[in-house]
Amino acid sequence: MDRCERILAGDVRTASRLIRDLEDGFPEALSVISDLYPHTGHAHVVGITGSPGAGKSTLVDGLIESLRRQGMSIGVLAVDPTSPFTGGAILGDRIRMQRHTEDPEVFVRSLATRGALGGLSRVVGDGIHVLDSMGKDIVVVETVGCGQQEVDIMNHAHTIILVLVPGMGDSVQVIKAGVMEIADIFVINKADRDGADVLFNEVSMMLDMAFHAEQGWRPPVIKIGSVLEPITFMQGIEELVTGITKHRRYLAASNGLRERMRRKALYEIKDSLEERILEPIYDKLLENNLMEDMVSRVVDRKSDPHTLSEEIAKRYLNI
Amino acid sequence: MDRCERILAGDVRTASRLIRDLEDGFPEALSVISDLYPHTGHAHVVGITGSPGAGKSTLVDGLIESLRRQGMSIGVLAVDPTSPFTGGAILGDRIRMQRHTEDPEVFVRSLATRGALGGLSRVVGDGIHVLDSMGKDIVVVETVGCGQQEVDIMNHAHTIILVLVPGMGDSVQVIKAGVMEIADIFVINKADRDGADVLFNEVSMMLDMAFHAEQGWRPPVIKIGSVLEPITFMQGIEELVTGITKHRRYLAASNGLRERMRRKALYEIKDSLEERILEPIYDKLLENNLMEDMVSRVVDRKSDPHTLSEEIAKRYLNI
Repeated sequence: MDRCERILAGDVRTASRLIRDLEDGFPEALSVISDLYPHTGHAHVVGITGSPGAGKSTLVDGLIESLRRQGMSIGVLAVDPTSPFTGGAILGDRIRMQRHTEDPEVFVRSLATRGALGGLSRVVGDGIHVLDSMGKDIVVVETVGCGQQEVDIMNHAHTIILVLVPGMGDSVQVIKAGVMEIADIFVINKADRDGADVLFNEVSMMLDMAFHAEQGWRPPVIKIGSVLEPITFMQGIEELVTGITKHRRYLAASNGLRERMRRKALYEIKDSLEERILEPIYDKLLENNLMEDMVSRVVDRKSDPHTLSEEIAKRYLNI
Repeated sequence: MDRCERILAGDVRTASRLIRDLEDGFPEALSVISDLYPHTGHAHVVGITGSPGAGKSTLVDGLIESLRRQGMSIGVLAVDPTSPFTGGAILGDRIRMQRHTEDPEVFVRSLATRGALGGLSRVVGDGIHVLDSMGKDIVVVETVGCGQQEVDIMNHAHTIILVLVPGMGDSVQVIKAGVMEIADIFVINKADRDGADVLFNEVSMMLDMAFHAEQGWRPPVIKIGSVLEPITFMQGIEELVTGITKHRRYLAASNGLRERMRRKALYEIKDSLEERILEPIYDKLLENNLMEDMVSRVVDRKSDPHTLSEEIAKRYLNI
């Protein structure tokens, strides 16, 4: 069996290795994705994002528990920004989730970018295809952070969940620029904390102001209690699962699903193009020491970045 | 006088318009940057980043005040993530800073990306060149956020300041992945709050663990008190100015400055290349409806992103 066949048969080890090859930017890995691609399209992709410390990992753990009871198979991609300072800390958070690793229907992988030019977003997109082709019903993508990168990553999801917690800063309004606009479901996590009701009302009011009936889907705001043990009684988690199911049905019934699939495809093509076009040019510039030379000319003010890049474009672009 | 000459003469209105053109992605604007570029290299670029609500704008305001008393001219680029939800709120924060706008030696501009493909980072890089060519001694770049985009933006700075505040989450360690590693100065803002000393010790300990003598520069951790009025007595701000001056001297005395200039140049060349190479390809794909077609093929599983982008690369790349 080749790599593709083994993954389609559900081989976890081959899948893990392929994802690592994607992270490391091996071009051969992309051709495996091409082979897997016709077998994708089954999974519903749920993106979960929110500030560090918002309790996303515990939430994902609760989600897995609940979805498993409904008999669904699950894949999780936990996106880690690589950092010598924080690597350990974030990994520690994820230990909870690992208890599901003995369940063959749950596949959890941490993702980081280790030099892939197309960036983390492309690796996430391809990682989703791997889990999807393995037959997972739900693929959960969890990101730590709140910048443009997270927005890019969320573009790969069908249902986007934004997790907020009370007491994380001066105002909700400045917490999640960019993600607010694309979230399908809002979660107020640790809802037993002070300020949870204020936060709930703030978010609800913002949604009321921004929502127009023709948009069709008004994102629900769901409170989740931080009842950690026993996890099976995590308050509000069933409501969240229902919210996901409703959103999935809404997408299927409207042309929302096709629209999202098109958006997803557009991003993936662009991510891939960026890599296939720029990588060979960078290789050329590096192999001839041209890049070093250009950097020196820019530092010494003998040329500027735009003039140089125009020269490069003229040389290598055939348009 | 052409645009370039007017900007070199310090014309604020022409400079503002050029920066807006850069945000909007007008290709003509890039050739003005090429003309300005030989006149750059004077300004020391200070990058300030930190979570929303960390009090960066007030800090920048204090910095301006203090630097002006030393007779320096100052340019400020405040980077705003464009967001219908938050635009207003963030703008509100910046009103403080605007009180300096009557001082001709202070030039404050908000920056957002409105469709420039090269992204916000390229616009920031070019915006710095504009202010630099106007003769500003110090250019401050302030970003709201904490993701990869902010790290990219900070790469344009000579001195990078990370602003932290007590009580913004479960642990410092997970707050600023990616920026922690590149910061030259740490600020504990709102240092009169509970937890400031704990935060100070945490950050100091992390730096002690990560710092190696051969690196030469051990980032100082500076506490700033949130004494808002009168702003001239903002506690710790003089220490911060001294920290910036020391770091500047350190860079000049070591080969750190040249190294940073090279890193900056490399990023700028890459940002510019991305735009000059990819933009014409996207234009071609859009004008022939090819992109629409590719998206449909990917959604319908008739092809996949990597196969398509390889075809495009073969067609348009001359390598």
